[in-house]
Amino acid sequence: MTEISPSRRATVKSILRGLRIETPSWAYGNSGTRFKVFAQAGVPRTPQEKIDDAAKVHELTGAAPSVALHIPWDKVDDWAGLAAHARDAGIELGAINPNVFQEDDYKLGSICNPDPGIRRKATDHLLECVEIAEQTGSKILSMWVADGTNYPGQDDIRARQDRLATALREVYDRMPEGMRLLLEYKFFEPAFYTMDVPDWGTSYAHCAQLGPAAQVLVDTGHHAPGTNIEFIVSFLLRAGMLGGFHFNSRFYADDDLIVGLADPFQLFRLMYEVNRGGGLAADSDLAFMLDQCHNIEPKIPAMIRSITNVQEATAKALLVDTDALRSAQEAGDVLGANEVLMDAYHTDVRPLVAELRTDMGLDPDPIAAYRRSGYQQRIEAERVGGNAMGWGA
Amino acid sequence: MTEISPSRRATVKSILRGLRIETPSWAYGNSGTRFKVFAQAGVPRTPQEKIDDAAKVHELTGAAPSVALHIPWDKVDDWAGLAAHARDAGIELGAINPNVFQEDDYKLGSICNPDPGIRRKATDHLLECVEIAEQTGSKILSMWVADGTNYPGQDDIRARQDRLATALREVYDRMPEGMRLLLEYKFFEPAFYTMDVPDWGTSYAHCAQLGPAAQVLVDTGHHAPGTNIEFIVSFLLRAGMLGGFHFNSRFYADDDLIVGLADPFQLFRLMYEVNRGGGLAADSDLAFMLDQCHNIEPKIPAMIRSITNVQEATAKALLVDTDALRSAQEAGDVLGANEVLMDAYHTDVRPLVAELRTDMGLDPDPIAAYRRSGYQQRIEAERVGGNAMGWGA
Amino acid sequence: MTEISPSRRATVKSILRGLRIETPSWAYGNSGTRFKVFAQAGVPRTPQEKIDDAAKVHELTGAAPSVALHIPWDKVDDWAGLAAHARDAGIELGAINPNVFQEDDYKLGSICNPDPGIRRKATDHLLECVEIAEQTGSKILSMWVADGTNYPGQDDIRARQDRLATALREVYDRMPEGMRLLLEYKFFEPAFYTMDVPDWGTSYAHCAQLGPAAQVLVDTGHHAPGTNIEFIVSFLLRAGMLGGFHFNSRFYADDDLIVGLADPFQLFRLMYEVNRGGGLAADSDLAFMLDQCHNIEPKIPAMIRSITNVQEATAKALLVDTDALRSAQEAGDVLGANEVLMDAYHTDVRPLVAELRTDMGLDPDPIAAYRRSGYQQRIEAERVGGNAMGWGA
Amino acid sequence: MTEISPSRRATVKSILRGLRIETPSWAYGNSGTRFKVFAQAGVPRTPQEKIDDAAKVHELTGAAPSVALHIPWDKVDDWAGLAAHARDAGIELGAINPNVFQEDDYKLGSICNPDPGIRRKATDHLLECVEIAEQTGSKILSMWVADGTNYPGQDDIRARQDRLATALREVYDRMPEGMRLLLEYKFFEPAFYTMDVPDWGTSYAHCAQLGPAAQVLVDTGHHAPGTNIEFIVSFLLRAGMLGGFHFNSRFYADDDLIVGLADPFQLFRLMYEVNRGGGLAADSDLAFMLDQCHNIEPKIPAMIRSITNVQEATAKALLVDTDALRSAQEAGDVLGANEVLMDAYHTDVRPLVAELRTDMGLDPDPIAAYRRSGYQQRIEAERVGGNAMGWGA
Repeated sequence: MTEISPSRRATVKSILRGLRIETPSWAYGNSGTRFKVFAQAGVPRTPQEKIDDAAKVHELTGAAPSVALHIPWDKVDDWAGLAAHARDAGIELGAINPNVFQEDDYKLGSICNPDPGIRRKATDHLLECVEIAEQTGSKILSMWVADGTNYPGQDDIRARQDRLATALREVYDRMPEGMRLLLEYKFFEPAFYTMDVPDWGTSYAHCAQLGPAAQVLVDTGHHAPGTNIEFIVSFLLRAGMLGGFHFNSRFYADDDLIVGLADPFQLFRLMYEVNRGGGLAADSDLAFMLDQCHNIEPKIPAMIRSITNVQEATAKALLVDTDALRSAQEAGDVLGANEVLMDAYHTDVRPLVAELRTDMGLDPDPIAAYRRSGYQQRIEAERVGGNAMGWGA
Repeated sequence: MTEISPSRRATVKSILRGLRIETPSWAYGNSGTRFKVFAQAGVPRTPQEKIDDAAKVHELTGAAPSVALHIPWDKVDDWAGLAAHARDAGIELGAINPNVFQEDDYKLGSICNPDPGIRRKATDHLLECVEIAEQTGSKILSMWVADGTNYPGQDDIRARQDRLATALREVYDRMPEGMRLLLEYKFFEPAFYTMDVPDWGTSYAHCAQLGPAAQVLVDTGHHAPGTNIEFIVSFLLRAGMLGGFHFNSRFYADDDLIVGLADPFQLFRLMYEVNRGGGLAADSDLAFMLDQCHNIEPKIPAMIRSITNVQEATAKALLVDTDALRSAQEAGDVLGANEVLMDAYHTDVRPLVAELRTDMGLDPDPIAAYRRSGYQQRIEAERVGGNAMGWGA
Repeated sequence: MTEISPSRRATVKSILRGLRIETPSWAYGNSGTRFKVFAQAGVPRTPQEKIDDAAKVHELTGAAPSVALHIPWDKVDDWAGLAAHARDAGIELGAINPNVFQEDDYKLGSICNPDPGIRRKATDHLLECVEIAEQTGSKILSMWVADGTNYPGQDDIRARQDRLATALREVYDRMPEGMRLLLEYKFFEPAFYTMDVPDWGTSYAHCAQLGPAAQVLVDTGHHAPGTNIEFIVSFLLRAGMLGGFHFNSRFYADDDLIVGLADPFQLFRLMYEVNRGGGLAADSDLAFMLDQCHNIEPKIPAMIRSITNVQEATAKALLVDTDALRSAQEAGDVLGANEVLMDAYHTDVRPLVAELRTDMGLDPDPIAAYRRSGYQQRIEAERVGGNAMGWGA
Repeated sequence: MTEISPSRRATVKSILRGLRIETPSWAYGNSGTRFKVFAQAGVPRTPQEKIDDAAKVHELTGAAPSVALHIPWDKVDDWAGLAAHARDAGIELGAINPNVFQEDDYKLGSICNPDPGIRRKATDHLLECVEIAEQTGSKILSMWVADGTNYPGQDDIRARQDRLATALREVYDRMPEGMRLLLEYKFFEPAFYTMDVPDWGTSYAHCAQLGPAAQVLVDTGHHAPGTNIEFIVSFLLRAGMLGGFHFNSRFYADDDLIVGLADPFQLFRLMYEVNRGGGLAADSDLAFMLDQCHNIEPKIPAMIRSITNVQEATAKALLVDTDALRSAQEAGDVLGANEVLMDAYHTDVRPLVAELRTDMGLDPDPIAAYRRSGYQQRIEAERVGGNAMGWGA
C-alpha cells in the first residue's frame, strides 16, 4: 500500500476530521517523579493560563477542542466565568477529574478508607464534582480511585470493596441525565500491595452494578507487564462498556510519556480495535483523552506531538483493508492476515495527515507552526512571578 | 503466637479436617517443557493406574478424596467401571476437564476457531464431557479454553468472543441441574498474542452472562507478573463468582511447580482471603484442585507435599486473630494490622497438622510413610512395558 | 523524510546488500508448545532437506547465505558431504549449536549437573561440536546452556557456576584459532527457579574470564519483561563483547515468533544501536542469526518475512540523520532528538528494499515469488513418508 | 526441625550477634509517591534529629550501630561535630550517599548529562562526598546514578557510558586507601526509557574496570519482575564483587516497603546465599543497609521491624542443615534438598532471636519496648515548628 487510493484517502480524512482528543489541564503544569519535579519556564499559574495553552494546542491541531479539569487543582469560584474563558479561547471544558489523593486525610484511602468520616469527606468531594460538571457543562465524571494498601493485612480487602460500591452508588445516583461516570483502573501506584480498582474486571463489575451511565476508562499506562490492551478494548466495546481512554506511553510502569513514542505499533493495534468496535463512528461517545506528564520535555509541543501521534495511528488503522483481512482470517491464512495489518502499519501516513490539516486551513506541521508562533517566548516572558502550577498546586 | 491455645487448636483442626483437595490424573503421568519430557520409572500406563496413585495420595494424607480427569487422556469405554475402580481404591472421580488443544484441527483454536466445522467438533467434545460427567457423577466441568492467536491480525478478536459465547451457551444449557461450569482464564500460552480468555474479567463477564451455574476458576499460575491474586479471590468470593482453584507455584510463567514452594506467603494470604470470604465454611462448594507438572521430581511425593503445603498455609490462615486484626484495621494501625497477619504466618504449624493426622489415624509424616510403604518400588517393578502416560497420551 | 535523497539511498542500499542473516535448520521442522506440536505438510525429513529449504530462502532474498545446525538434530556421518550439499544448493553451513538438553541424563542439567559423569558426557558433546565445526568450516560455536533448577535448594547455585566455568574453559581451550564461542543467556525456561546463565551479565563475566574468542549472544526473546535490549546491545558493542544475535519476537516469554512482528519499533531501535556501535561495518564479524519457531504459520514464508523485517528495520536505522540527531542530543533538545529518530522510523522503506532486490536480480517481493515458485507444492508432494523433523528428531 | 539443638542455637546466636544493619537517615523523614508526601508528626527537622532516631533504633535492637547519610540532605558545616553527635548518641556515621538528582540542572542527567558543565558540577559533588566521607570516617561511598533518558533518541546511550566511566574513574582515583565505591543499579525510575546503570551486569563491568575498591551494590527493589536476586548475590559473592545491600520490599516496582514483608521467603533465600558465599563470616566487609520509605507507617517502628525481619531471615538461613542439603543435592534428590531448605524456613525463630536480645541485655520485643519508651510521644511534642525533613529537604 505505498499508494493510497483517492476514495480511501477521502474516507480516512473524513473520519480523522471527526477525531477529537481532549487534553488534560494538569499536563501543562510542572510534574515529575517522586525524586524531583523539574520546573519549566512559562508554565501556567492559573487554571485560565492552562486553558490558554490547551486552546493553543487546539488552534494548531484542530483536534483538541476540549480540556479536562482536575479538582481541586483547577478549582475556581466562578465556573461559568471559567467556561466563558475557555469559549473565548476557542475550546470547551471537558471531563471533570475529582482528586481524592492529595490530602493528609487520604493517607489510608478516600472512599475506601476505614474511617467513615474520611469516606464521607471524599464522597462529598465527588458529589461536589458532579455539581461542578453540571455548571461547566461537562458530560463526563472521570474517576480514578487512588485507594489501596501497602501491606498485607493493613485493611480488609472485601470491606474496602463494600465501601467503594457504596460511594460509587451515591455518586452515580446524583448524576444528572446525560452525564457518565467513567471508572478508571490502575495496576499499582500509589499503593503497592492492593489497589482497590486494580484492573478492568473490577471496574467492569462495579460499572455493570451501577447502571448504563457507568463505563470503564482505559488508561494505557495502567496495566501489568505484557497485558494485551487492545484485547480489553475490543472486549469492552463488544460489551458496550468502554467509556473512553486516557492515552499515554509507558516502558515499565505508569510512565505517562507521550502517547505513541514507546510502542507505536501498540497504539495502531489499539486504534484498529477502536474502529473495529465502532468507536470512530459518528454516533460514538467514546472519549479520547490524554493523561500525560511531560517531566523533561516542553509541554505544549509534547501535547501537539501526542495529538499527531494519535492521528497517525488512527489513519493507519483506517487504512487496513478490512475485506482482505476478513478473507485471510476466515481462510486461516495466518501470515496473510497479519500482512494485511502490517501493510497499513508500514504505510507512511504523515503526508495524508498533513493534507488534512491543509484542507482544514491549518499549518501542515503544527510543531513547526508552534515554534514559529512566538507563543512559547511570550509565555516565558509573561508568566513570571506567581506560583507555577503543578500537581498539588 | 508461639503458643496456640487449645480451643483455637481444636477449631483449626476441625476446619482442616474438612479441607478436601482434588489431585489431577495428569500429574501422575510424564510431563515436561517444550524442550523435553523426562521419563520417570513407574509412571501409570492407564487411567486406572493414575487413579491408583491418586488413591495412594489420599490414603496417606486423608485430604485428597477425589481425582480430576482429563478427556480424552483418561477416556475409557466403561465410565461406570472406572468409577467403581476409583471407589474400590478409596476415592471418587472429580472434575471433568475437556481437552480441545491437542489435535491438529485445533491449530487455530477450538470453539473460537474461524472454521465452523472445527468449532462444531470442539463443542461436541464439550457436550460429550458433560455426558461423561453425568456418568461419572462429577459435579464440575472444568473448562480451559486454550484458544488464542499468535500474530496481530491473525483473527478477529471480537468475532472470537462471539464464537466463545455461543459455544459456552450451548454447553451451559446442556448441563444437568447441580453441575457447574468453571471457566479458567490464562494470561498467555499456548497462544502468545491473544488468549481468548486471558484474565478473570473475561471469565467473570462470560459467567455472569451464562447464569448461576457458571463460575470463575482461578489457576494460581495464570496471571501477569505482579498480579495480586488474593485480591481477585476476595473480589470473586464477594460476588459469589469464585468456583474453585487450580493450585500450583510459579516463578515466571505457568511453571506448574508444587504449590507453596515458590511463594509460601502468597499461598497463606490467598487461604486467608478464602477463609475471610467464607470459602472454608461447611456449606461452601469452592473446589480446591491441584494442577501441576512434576517434570523433574517424583510425582507421588510431590503430590503429597502439595497437599501438606496447602494444609499448612490453611492452618496459618486460620490462626489469624481476626478480632485483633479488625481492631487494628479499623484504627488505621498499619503496622499493627500487618503484625497480626505476620504473627500467624510465622507460626510453625507443622506440629498441629501432624497432630491432626494422628487424630485421623494417619502417619504424621505422609512423605516418610510413602517412602516406607514400598509403593514406589512396587510400581517401578510392575509398570514395565506399555506406554507411560503423559500429556497427549 | 518522505523523500530519501539519492546519495543516502545508495549508501543505505550498499550497506543493506552486505547484511547477511543466518537461518536456523530447526525452524524448517515442526515445532510447538509443551501442549502440542502441530504437524505441517512438506516439512523436511533429513538435514539435507532442511538445507534445501534454507537455500530456497536465500535464493529468494539474497540475504540468508548460511544455515545454522543443531547437533544432534542435524547430525550426519559425512560432514564434508553435508557441506557439499549446502554448497551445491547455494549456501554454506553456519554456526554449530550443541544440544545438551534433550536426553534423560540431562534432567538436572548438563555441564552444571551435580553428577560428574553427566558433566563429562555433556562436555564431550561440546568438544565433539568443536570438531564438527572444524569439519564444516563453521566459525561459531553457539552455546545455549539450558541448565538450571526448578526448586530452591535443589542444587548449589555457586557450585553450578564452578562447574560451568570448568566446562567452558575446556571447550574454549579446544577451539581452533578463528573460532568463536558465543554464550547465550536466557531468563527462564526450561528451568524455572534458576537458570545457570540467566542474563547478559553472567554471560559477560564468563566470556571476559575465558578470553577474546568468547562473546555474548543476545537472543531477543530471552529477557525479563521491560528489559531495554538495545541498551545491552549498545553496552556490549562498546565493550567489544557482542558476538551476535538470535532474532525473534515475543509478547510475553520466549515466544519465538517472527522477528519484527511483536514490536517493530524495538527492532528498529536495536538495529540503530547495532549501526551506532559499528556492527554493520564491513569489518564487523557480528553474527545475525534467526532463532524462531513457526508453530502455526508456514515455515518458509515465515522465514522470508523474518528476513525482510530485519532488512526493513535496518534500512530505517540507516536513514536516521545522525548529524541532526547528535546536534539535538548535545543541545538537550529532548523532543527534537526523538523526532529525528521517529522520522526515520515512520518512513516507508519497502520501496527502497524492493529496489535493492531488483538491483540484485531478485524478485522485489520474495514472498509472492515463493508462492509462484511451486516449491511449496513440490515439497508437500515429495516429502511424504519418513519422519518429519522437529525438535528432538 | 521443630527443635533446635543447643549447639546450633549457640552458633546461630553468635553469628546473629555480629550482624550489623545500617539504617538510612532519609527513612526517618517524610516520604511519599509522586502523588503525595504524607506528613507524620515528630519527624526530624535536622540531621541531628535523624541521628537521634537512628540511635534509638540501635538502642532497642542492638543491631543498627550506624546511620547512612544522604548529601546534601544531611549536609552540615561541621562534620566532626555531627560525628561527635552520633557517637554521643551511641552510633556511628555510615555510608555517604551522594545525591545528584534533585537539582534542576540534573534534568537530563548528572555525570552522564550531555552538558560538560553539568557533568563537572555533578562530579565535583561526588568528589566532595569523598571528602565528607574522609571527615566522617565513612568507609563507603554508596553511589546511585539516577541518570537515564525518557525517550528513544533523546541521548546517545554509548556516549553516556563513556561519560559515566570518566566520572567514576575520577572519583575512584580520589578515594583514599580503605574506602570503597559501591555502585548501585536500578532497572527503571526516575528515567523510563534507559537507565545508565540498569542492571548488575552494567555495575559489574564498570567496577571490574575501576579496580578492587569498586563493588556492586544490590538494592532488592531494583530489578525486573521475576528476577532471581539470590542468583545475583551468589554470583557476585563468588566473584568477590558484592559490596553490600540496600534492603527493602517490593510488590511491583521500587516500592521501598519494609524488608521481608512482601516476600519473606525471598529474603530467607537471599540470606542463605549470603551465608553460603561467606558474607556472614567474621572477616566479611559486606555492608547490610536498609533503603526504605515509610510513606504511611510510623517510621521508627517500621525501622525496628525491618531489622527484626532481617535477623529472623538470617536466623532461618543459619538453621539450614548444610550437610543434609549437600548430600541431597549431590544425590540429585530434588524434593529432599528442597525439604532441607524449607524445614529451616518453616521454623519459628522468633523465640531464638528474642533469647539473643535477652542475652544482650535488650528487651526481647523491641517494638513493644519502643511503644513503652515514650520516645514517640516526646518527639511529637518536641519537634514542632521548623521544617520536617523529607526528600529534597
